[in-house]
Amino acid sequence: MALLVLKFGGTSVADLDRIRAAAKHIKREIDAGNQCAVVVSAMGDQTDHLVSWTREAAALHDAREYDVVVSTGEQVTCGLLSIILQNMGVPARSWLGWQLPIHTDGAHGAARILDIETDQLKSRLKNGEVAVVPGFQGRSPDGRITTLGRGGSDTSAVALAAALGADRCDIYTDVDGIYTGDPRIVPHARRLDKISYEEMLETASLGAKVLQTRSVQLAMVHQVRLLVRSSFESADGKQDDGGHTGTLVCDEDEIVEQQVVSGIAYTKDEAKVTLIGVEDKPGVAARVFGPLADASINVDMIVQNVSGDGETTDLTFTVSAADLDRALDVLQKVKAELAYEDLRGSTEIVKVSVIGIGMRSHAGVASQMFKALADKGINIEAISTSEIKISVLIDAAYAELAVRTLHSLYGLDNA
Amino acid sequence: MALLVLKFGGTSVADLDRIRAAAKHIKREIDAGNQCAVVVSAMGDQTDHLVSWTREAAALHDAREYDVVVSTGEQVTCGLLSIILQNMGVPARSWLGWQLPIHTDGAHGAARILDIETDQLKSRLKNGEVAVVPGFQGRSPDGRITTLGRGGSDTSAVALAAALGADRCDIYTDVDGIYTGDPRIVPHARRLDKISYEEMLETASLGAKVLQTRSVQLAMVHQVRLLVRSSFESADGKQDDGGHTGTLVCDEDEIVEQQVVSGIAYTKDEAKVTLIGVEDKPGVAARVFGPLADASINVDMIVQNVSGDGETTDLTFTVSAADLDRALDVLQKVKAELAYEDLRGSTEIVKVSVIGIGMRSHAGVASQMFKALADKGINIEAISTSEIKISVLIDAAYAELAVRTLHSLYGLDNA
Repeated sequence: MALLVLKFGGTSVADLDRIRAAAKHIKREIDAGNQCAVVVSAMGDQTDHLVSWTREAAALHDAREYDVVVSTGEQVTCGLLSIILQNMGVPARSWLGWQLPIHTDGAHGAARILDIETDQLKSRLKNGEVAVVPGFQGRSPDGRITTLGRGGSDTSAVALAAALGADRCDIYTDVDGIYTGDPRIVPHARRLDKISYEEMLETASLGAKVLQTRSVQLAMVHQVRLLVRSSFESADGKQDDGGHTGTLVCDEDEIVEQQVVSGIAYTKDEAKVTLIGVEDKPGVAARVFGPLADASINVDMIVQNVSGDGETTDLTFTVSAADLDRALDVLQKVKAELAYEDLRGSTEIVKVSVIGIGMRSHAGVASQMFKALADKGINIEAISTSEIKISVLIDAAYAELAVRTLHSLYGLDNA
Repeated sequence: MALLVLKFGGTSVADLDRIRAAAKHIKREIDAGNQCAVVVSAMGDQTDHLVSWTREAAALHDAREYDVVVSTGEQVTCGLLSIILQNMGVPARSWLGWQLPIHTDGAHGAARILDIETDQLKSRLKNGEVAVVPGFQGRSPDGRITTLGRGGSDTSAVALAAALGADRCDIYTDVDGIYTGDPRIVPHARRLDKISYEEMLETASLGAKVLQTRSVQLAMVHQVRLLVRSSFESADGKQDDGGHTGTLVCDEDEIVEQQVVSGIAYTKDEAKVTLIGVEDKPGVAARVFGPLADASINVDMIVQNVSGDGETTDLTFTVSAADLDRALDVLQKVKAELAYEDLRGSTEIVKVSVIGIGMRSHAGVASQMFKALADKGINIEAISTSEIKISVLIDAAYAELAVRTLHSLYGLDNA
């Protein structure tokens, strides 16, 4: 018997049929003797719909009233799921953010959860009642509805699991776990049984949209075990006997057979900016990156190539693809000051990363990587590393080849 | 300078353009130095949409969760109207039912307002801030969302006006007031400047859907002056200089030039049931109407005709058209016991009523009515009266003729 938090995202509650499928997963856990608190998102595209209404009302609008409008999406799902559970004979009730309450700070539209009151909830859960809680929302110190910002339902689920001291937080989504590589381009990718919080954080920050980065950070801090699993599998599927399908995101101590590399990730959401013929003297970097920082543009990888003449240099760096036009605009405005010869931008690049907690104790991962890519004739334009990750920037045309090559190189291919 | 409650119904906030039009009416009142609390319905058919989801979730469902789902309709309107008002430079904020709070009893889906806390609201209103409040909802004693039942937003507005001690409650709707007769069939109908609560109650209970009966009762008890007016007139229209357009529903003392008859109403929502050849002895009526009452079927007019033989009688009565099939079913089941010869039902009837508070002090209104209808060859099948109303049941084919005839008879035609 365990205390579980189950989270169902937008695609898992997209319509009444999907909500019924979610209810079956919940019923299975209750029938197995577990206590269940459930966190739900808004149905399918309801949030987009509500957001577009607030924008149509006024381009610039009060975030407090935005929250009043947008929070209704999850509220509707809560009521409908409770009705469906009751109709299946499972006692259930909705607990809105202001009812528990879920205390947040007052940053409307992007609030942070401070505390969740769970006394009432715990006694109800013990009596076998399912608590259905809206994700993505809470109550501000002055008693108004807050939202946590887009995609915040994962964070709600993890925070609730931490507050309840849950044994596990199951994230039901449209994929059945975390893979060693994107199955769309790596046919031999394997689903991982377990992945550490830190590896998951690197994967999430690289644009693998299975879990919100913030929710993984929160899970790591509070040691909440996350199980990423599919809501599209049948609730009474045979795969679920004994263990679980899905991938458990947990502390590295819980992962017995540690592999050096656990997965290969890539992201196409980056863009490359190159300044050609910049003066090669102290202070140039500050003059380039200062205006970008002022414009809230994050710069990721940076490479400086000394040119032949020794007086000028080429500076290459990456920004998110969404920021490219703005970055070029900022740099064009300071052209006189920077005195560069030419400015180029490109989104035809991709960042490929090798991730693995075992890299801490294994040398040579990077040199193997560079050699394997060179053998395939793939040019590395930039490199960045962390303790458990090595990323390279390459031409977008080579993305699939690079990912497949590295997936084989580190022994990740399914036998 | 006055304290006003403004209520906008579903058609008056059907989309963002309509909400903008509503905001202009509010701004006009604020610019004129008035304090404004606003009560809003859900946008257009949103409530129907949400209700259908709850039904699709389960035919029989928990009214508490129904309220969680359905109350989101008004919540969305509140947020959007607040955003639009702010964007027009009018300070505004939403106050949800649980935030004020609007205390109701625990009858989910059909709750009654017990009390509204207004201390915070009053000080905000004094500072020129518009309070935007969702109609149709409140908070139960145990802290859950309640709804007042369909069409309850009028009641919310009147209750808020009473709690605030408002000078007037303006009901913005898709008609510009109360008329002496239905303008679709009486071309010469006039809009009334004023109508008494009691007359309005008779009109409302007859199916004139401009105001909910319960809201008029509440207004009468708390002496809240209601102004029924159009949200479709331009907010800065010339018609509004000096006085108001619309019809004021008020105490009869406020109506200086009292007319004997203030209007002619009719309703097609009735059905006629005739039991032919019922035994004419004591206790028969109880045996007929007992089973109907047990089935929660309201009986309105009743006529008993003694037949020629003196031993049996024909019994005619009316029920609402929606209840006809059920009423016939109930009576068929007790046929053996009642021993009637035949049972007939018809919806081809209409109830036409003459309403006027002046009838209390003027005799002869009824006899004039019966004579005028007889002169046109219209047969009266049943009659019912109250202190300020005379209703007759006639063949539906004569509905328009009867209404026009009576409208002229009592001098209501526009010159």
